Amino acid sequence: MPDIKELTEKIKKFRDERDWKQFHNPKDVALSLVLEAAEVMEHFQWKNQAEIEEYVKNAKEDIGEELADVLYWVLILSYDLEIDIREALEKKIVKNEKRYPVDKSRGRHTKYNKL
Amino acid sequence: MPDIKELTEKIKKFRDERDWKQFHNPKDVALSLVLEAAEVMEHFQWKNQAEIEEYVKNAKEDIGEELADVLYWVLILSYDLEIDIREALEKKIVKNEKRYPVDKSRGRHTKYNKL
Amino acid sequence: MPDIKELTEKIKKFRDERDWKQFHNPKDVALSLVLEAAEVMEHFQWKNQAEIEEYVKNAKEDIGEELADVLYWVLILSYDLEIDIREALEKKIVKNEKRYPVDKSRGRHTKYNKL
Amino acid sequence: MPDIKELTEKIKKFRDERDWKQFHNPKDVALSLVLEAAEVMEHFQWKNQAEIEEYVKNAKEDIGEELADVLYWVLILSYDLEIDIREALEKKIVKNEKRYPVDKSRGRHTKYNKL
Repeated sequence: MPDIKELTEKIKKFRDERDWKQFHNPKDVALSLVLEAAEVMEHFQWKNQAEIEEYVKNAKEDIGEELADVLYWVLILSYDLEIDIREALEKKIVKNEKRYPVDKSRGRHTKYNKL
Repeated sequence: MPDIKELTEKIKKFRDERDWKQFHNPKDVALSLVLEAAEVMEHFQWKNQAEIEEYVKNAKEDIGEELADVLYWVLILSYDLEIDIREALEKKIVKNEKRYPVDKSRGRHTKYNKL
Repeated sequence: MPDIKELTEKIKKFRDERDWKQFHNPKDVALSLVLEAAEVMEHFQWKNQAEIEEYVKNAKEDIGEELADVLYWVLILSYDLEIDIREALEKKIVKNEKRYPVDKSRGRHTKYNKL
Repeated sequence: MPDIKELTEKIKKFRDERDWKQFHNPKDVALSLVLEAAEVMEHFQWKNQAEIEEYVKNAKEDIGEELADVLYWVLILSYDLEIDIREALEKKIVKNEKRYPVDKSRGRHTKYNKL
């Protein structure tokens, strides 16, 4: 079984055992997604690049846990809204390949609408 | 090949063709993760539950695209920090199973540290 | 002295005594602004309207502290970028009055670009 | 009249003319606060310090507008929850002065709970 599907199944099982679907309206789930993304970001607050490189050596476990929380909500929201997230990401990559042609965007961080 | 790995490969290829790794320091990647999560959340702003149910019928494509952007940054950051995101999520589910015992948390949205 | 100016002076004094201006580059300050805004939002996560009304009765102090943190970063960033935040808000209200004419927007939460 | 009060009055008037209080439940207001904070942050995405310094020269107007949006929601939420935001910020500064004694925190960005 593909791992996105397998992880989604595990999350669903966890949720169903606790009868938590009732709380998972899209607004609160999206809000939770933002909160967890913010927790990932907090790890890098105030640190310069050298400090970050030093920091991540010992914080991989913690950062991984926060990233896992983000993925958790991505998978739950995709499942609840019947979005095939794998397909959505593949389509987005194709779209971005058009938005950011290699010759125009190589080595530049300009947004597509300003290229 | 498991799909998380496959998606990661596609994203890496997209990035390498554009020589964008130079911009992907963890702080800016995490910042991008938050911005995309916020774009997911914006879809539900000001709408009540009935309006959300109506809205998502026709917005699945758009919401899927934003969720894909979030997943994109989760996978990039996991790759760059050498975090096995699948394993991290599985471990987090096990941790949450302990934090939220079924008998104490069933049907309640209380945070684990207040159970 | 107008209170925005007075609060800004107090914050500057607090910062200068600790020699923290060196850390306050706009990216990290904006990142901090988002983190504090997320902490405000977290107070309302998973709660329905009735639960929120009950909750805020006893959480005014805590929520006020998070809102103060947000204001703190708004004032610091405005000061550092030489933005007159009072004037900026007055201008934005005038702009919004045009974007949202009373007759078109009364009782509706439609965004200005869809009115 | 102190300017925080005056700005709050203007915002209230703007809101009342449009009959928008009905939408301003704390959850959606806090969500809006986060979205606007994210828009401030987006200005600095991918830019290094030199690029930011160059960028802000011409973007003061735009950044000011986003900061004004953040302040707008701070003032609305404070008003609706009957929080005296000026007093809350003054108290928070006093609290931070204790959390971050000058001799321990001078020139360091360590969080108070790790000092």
